[in-house]
Amino acid sequence: MAVYTDVSEGELEAFLRGYDVGHMLSYKGIAEGSENSNFLLHTSTGSYILTLYEKRVDPGDLPFFLGLMEHLARKGISCPLPVHRRDGEVIGTVAGRRAALITFLEGAWMRRPTVSHCREVGKALAGLHLAGADFPLHRPNALAFEGWRKLWEGSRARAHEVEPGLAEEVDSDFVDLAAAWPGHLPAGVIHADLFPDNVFFLGEELSGLIDFYFACNDLYAYDLATCLNAWCFEKDNAFNLTKGTALLAGYQSVRPLSQAEKDALPVLARGSALRFMLTRLYDWLTIPDGALVQKRDPHEYIRRLRFHRKITSPREYGLA
Amino acid sequence: MAVYTDVSEGELEAFLRGYDVGHMLSYKGIAEGSENSNFLLHTSTGSYILTLYEKRVDPGDLPFFLGLMEHLARKGISCPLPVHRRDGEVIGTVAGRRAALITFLEGAWMRRPTVSHCREVGKALAGLHLAGADFPLHRPNALAFEGWRKLWEGSRARAHEVEPGLAEEVDSDFVDLAAAWPGHLPAGVIHADLFPDNVFFLGEELSGLIDFYFACNDLYAYDLATCLNAWCFEKDNAFNLTKGTALLAGYQSVRPLSQAEKDALPVLARGSALRFMLTRLYDWLTIPDGALVQKRDPHEYIRRLRFHRKITSPREYGLA
Repeated sequence: MAVYTDVSEGELEAFLRGYDVGHMLSYKGIAEGSENSNFLLHTSTGSYILTLYEKRVDPGDLPFFLGLMEHLARKGISCPLPVHRRDGEVIGTVAGRRAALITFLEGAWMRRPTVSHCREVGKALAGLHLAGADFPLHRPNALAFEGWRKLWEGSRARAHEVEPGLAEEVDSDFVDLAAAWPGHLPAGVIHADLFPDNVFFLGEELSGLIDFYFACNDLYAYDLATCLNAWCFEKDNAFNLTKGTALLAGYQSVRPLSQAEKDALPVLARGSALRFMLTRLYDWLTIPDGALVQKRDPHEYIRRLRFHRKITSPREYGLA
Repeated sequence: MAVYTDVSEGELEAFLRGYDVGHMLSYKGIAEGSENSNFLLHTSTGSYILTLYEKRVDPGDLPFFLGLMEHLARKGISCPLPVHRRDGEVIGTVAGRRAALITFLEGAWMRRPTVSHCREVGKALAGLHLAGADFPLHRPNALAFEGWRKLWEGSRARAHEVEPGLAEEVDSDFVDLAAAWPGHLPAGVIHADLFPDNVFFLGEELSGLIDFYFACNDLYAYDLATCLNAWCFEKDNAFNLTKGTALLAGYQSVRPLSQAEKDALPVLARGSALRFMLTRLYDWLTIPDGALVQKRDPHEYIRRLRFHRKITSPREYGLA
């Protein structure tokens, strides 16, 4: 929720000379995206997003992220398209940061998603999984089991400051998940962060998916479990079964789940809740107050974890 | 530099039904403006800025600010124009805040203004003074002498934390300025905050003035002195005489200064530097770390104050 690096008009004009996008009309830093600096740019040819990659992003991952966006767009997924420079590259440099210019997608993200939005996002996620299946690059999920362990090692000692008893709760999650984590489910490119602020709608129609900077190779059903966490709980942290039913039905209308995927849903949802609880907890404990990085309260995901621990059948999520 | 209040898509759509601006395509919170929440809105008819007025803005002042923008635009000044609602009003409500929709001005603000930009802003400021002369509403300057005293009462005791000896320095500024402040110079509507981030350029051409939320009635030459402070010092806080010369010449090419205004320039520049030093000092000492409000280091203006104290003739600013 911040612009970490500002860009001067001279730097921007020099950067834009590398592209065939007309002349600059205006640019505004926007309060979206938690990892990078983003500007909404108007030029004589249209609107674009200029993204400056900050230190949390590994430059070696940029070809995967930007290549994936191009791959998906070619397959008909509505997502931002990196603009090629005159020299053919998609990654340039501005204000000392690696940077890319991407097309601007109209649409607004839903602060209050409805059942209909949940169905649409389910369909779009399945479409993304199918479209990404033949993407040739590979990126391991840095926030999989071993990544969680590192975050937990860095926060366990102070976990009680956030919630009494949290250390013991989470220790047992690690034991249970290590024993139950499924090894052989269908896998491929996943979005890994398909929260409401990364999905745009125009009216009831889904107009695009954005922010592929956590995309990686992992289990498809894990990505779906993340959407259950991100879309189907209400502000009071209660699970909305109608939304879960719609999300899962939407997904299965495009890519039906195998029985093994269905059976794994509770453990995957618990693992996904653990992943988001841990990144939030770690940031909560380690990022100083007053830093530009937005810190999210981990409690929301502590509550989701407790919910998933009690699930005994995937039908409790609304699976038909 | 923040969005204090977010707006949901449903709230925004309901708000926009009061206007004749087509249907919403997208809206992004933008990291500009230090007092209010601002969104860049795309609709089927074009781009707009949606401003939500936060608690630092007195609702009673909104008719002055928005009426002034309309008045100036009618007089040919390039500034944002409040869009009228279907019921004729320009102020509505969204997300529990008073809000206005204003036209979007293309252009970028200059992070590194040149001499040519300084000349253009001088001309534009004089044009604004002339165009505002027959604006019928009146708003006293809340950040004039008495306002400074209140800020100083609220920060004097801790001023040494920011700079040793600052309390004594500023005490003598108050004595000197009270004795020397000019009473009878030409006055009228001033912008009062015409910093580089409030002036847009397209190439070398000034494309517009924004952010009239400090506008008020006060001395024209005081407004010009504020521009000297805001535009003609370098990053190392050295005064750039060439820029000063250009700014003053640009201003006088549209509205020549009287001899009394010229003679008052050093004391006005010192007063203006005191005003910005005091607001920054007060915020620096009272706003908690981690708050969304951007805190600016008061040292920049402590240095300007010291510069102005030594000025013996307005010719030292570049006055012909």
